[in-house]
Amino acid sequence: MLDVQGKAVAGALKDLGFGGVQDARVGKRIEIELEGTDRAAAEAQVKEMCEKLLANTVIESYRVEITG
Amino acid sequence: MLDVQGKAVAGALKDLGFGGVQDARVGKRIEIELEGTDRAAAEAQVKEMCEKLLANTVIESYRVEITG
Repeated sequence: MLDVQGKAVAGALKDLGFGGVQDARVGKRIEIELEGTDRAAAEAQVKEMCEKLLANTVIESYRVEITG
Repeated sequence: MLDVQGKAVAGALKDLGFGGVQDARVGKRIEIELEGTDRAAAEAQVKEMCEKLLANTVIESYRVEITG
């Protein structure tokens, strides 16, 4: 995917003197607290949330991580 | 910190029928590819990037994770 914000961040960091920057990507991070202890059920539910509300799957990719 | 976007996401998810949602937080995730193999140096550099450019430390907190 094209990531204009990421390119801008990488460029700005180089301009500030951070010469080691190869690339940058900017995205959204959403943390959700869910009731329950079934990790598989939680993952299925969060994927459904992504498809229905959280991600614009036409132009964005997403990944789900279950912790705690 | 007050997270208006997070509260909106939690409310919208509940309205969509995801009753198990307790809370949601929305933030930014920035991935940076850096030259070099010194993890401590990388972490110090990224913290400097956050303070100088990436985070608005008046209203945002941030954390740094070094991988790869």
